[in-house]
Amino acid sequence: MKIVILGSGNVATILGKALLEEGYDIIEVWSRTFSNAKILANSLQSQATDDLAQIRQDADLYLIAVKDDAIASIIDHLGSINGVVAHTSGSTSIEVFSGKCSHYGVFYPFQTFSKEKDVAFKEVPVLIEASDPITLAALKKVATAISNTVKEYDSSQRMQLHIAGVFASNFTNHLYSIAERLLTDNQIDFDLLRPLILETATKVQNILPEAAQTGPAIRNDLNIMATHQQQLESHPDLLAIYTLLSNHINTQRPKK
Amino acid sequence: MKIVILGSGNVATILGKALLEEGYDIIEVWSRTFSNAKILANSLQSQATDDLAQIRQDADLYLIAVKDDAIASIIDHLGSINGVVAHTSGSTSIEVFSGKCSHYGVFYPFQTFSKEKDVAFKEVPVLIEASDPITLAALKKVATAISNTVKEYDSSQRMQLHIAGVFASNFTNHLYSIAERLLTDNQIDFDLLRPLILETATKVQNILPEAAQTGPAIRNDLNIMATHQQQLESHPDLLAIYTLLSNHINTQRPKK
Repeated sequence: MKIVILGSGNVATILGKALLEEGYDIIEVWSRTFSNAKILANSLQSQATDDLAQIRQDADLYLIAVKDDAIASIIDHLGSINGVVAHTSGSTSIEVFSGKCSHYGVFYPFQTFSKEKDVAFKEVPVLIEASDPITLAALKKVATAISNTVKEYDSSQRMQLHIAGVFASNFTNHLYSIAERLLTDNQIDFDLLRPLILETATKVQNILPEAAQTGPAIRNDLNIMATHQQQLESHPDLLAIYTLLSNHINTQRPKK
Repeated sequence: MKIVILGSGNVATILGKALLEEGYDIIEVWSRTFSNAKILANSLQSQATDDLAQIRQDADLYLIAVKDDAIASIIDHLGSINGVVAHTSGSTSIEVFSGKCSHYGVFYPFQTFSKEKDVAFKEVPVLIEASDPITLAALKKVATAISNTVKEYDSSQRMQLHIAGVFASNFTNHLYSIAERLLTDNQIDFDLLRPLILETATKVQNILPEAAQTGPAIRNDLNIMATHQQQLESHPDLLAIYTLLSNHINTQRPKK
């Protein structure tokens, strides 16, 4: 099976690597910036291009792993393709392909990817959706080869999953950043926080987050919350985040 | 060494267990509610009481692991104690003991504890502070017996660490809860989110959170952010959190 990857960012890189490891042939890597295409193509034993008009026509699968707002303009160049064309986005509907490609779908790996950090792709859920049963079967085959968890969801559910992921991962990581900033300001090593971060995530691997909630807001410890708010007065942005999230936890305490 | 534990909540339970495992003798457990004292005392091969006036006077260490606003009233009953008296709170100053006890300090295990979830206490940082060098040495000895990471910080730094922990753990867990609610509303299994949660926490074990940030806000993907906000319109509370955190990430993007 021959695959073309369009994009050279985190998702394109990690996905390309997982596919190569399972023996797929990445015949071409396209990126808007040739040097980026070249770097990824080299690591995937592939060829690089930055010319959408010259994309190879003979692949079985074209994976579009680019920023959401670039997807439509790339699809405009792939109208003559006979293979399956799929994007990897959580929040772009499958409708983006409608009337433009013959066989199309979505191949969404639900994980946070950074080029510097290897990930066990087998543990990454892959959500698929397709224009027709044959395309669905083709996407499922590839997904199952690289991941232990493959699910079929429609565009609306996939968007909800993406939003949930933004809360549980993107926002969470930003809270880690804020915590790091507070520690650095007070000459405290971030290493002290790392076990707490890992344990917080590990806890909800077996129980639900509601049962795992701890801290002043869930204890209704109003004095401590007020003390913390006073400490944060010199950081109005952090004070606003502290107040909004504490109040949200506090109002959702189970009634006794 | 003989220890009395005051409190029967998550911290009292996990700390008592860690101390017992290292061979310490928990001679008494006090709780305001006798049945709670009894449950914990039984699990620690100890005796239970709910009478502060009758607390045993012959222990070497009294650990006060109760809600912050209950600490001062407990200390009022411990004025005649010769042993070391310490609380386990992040945000209550050591000054709470001043003029009331002879040897006192703070013994703050920096982790999120739930009774249902075992924790490898050796990996939990313990922050200590004491009224005098002899008391400090005593607290350090106990802390070092149960934890690999023991640090001395003053009350002001400990409060900052606690606030950082609220952001990185309590708020983070609440974001997991919100994500779970979004999934449940859309008939999506929370299991799909668990690998993402774990990977997000695992990533920052080696790199700093700023380098690990992903998602629409850091990519400045304004269309996707607007689409997500539209999807959240029926949950004004979640929309407010989404907007505040996305904007905070977005304004902190590195300048190109």
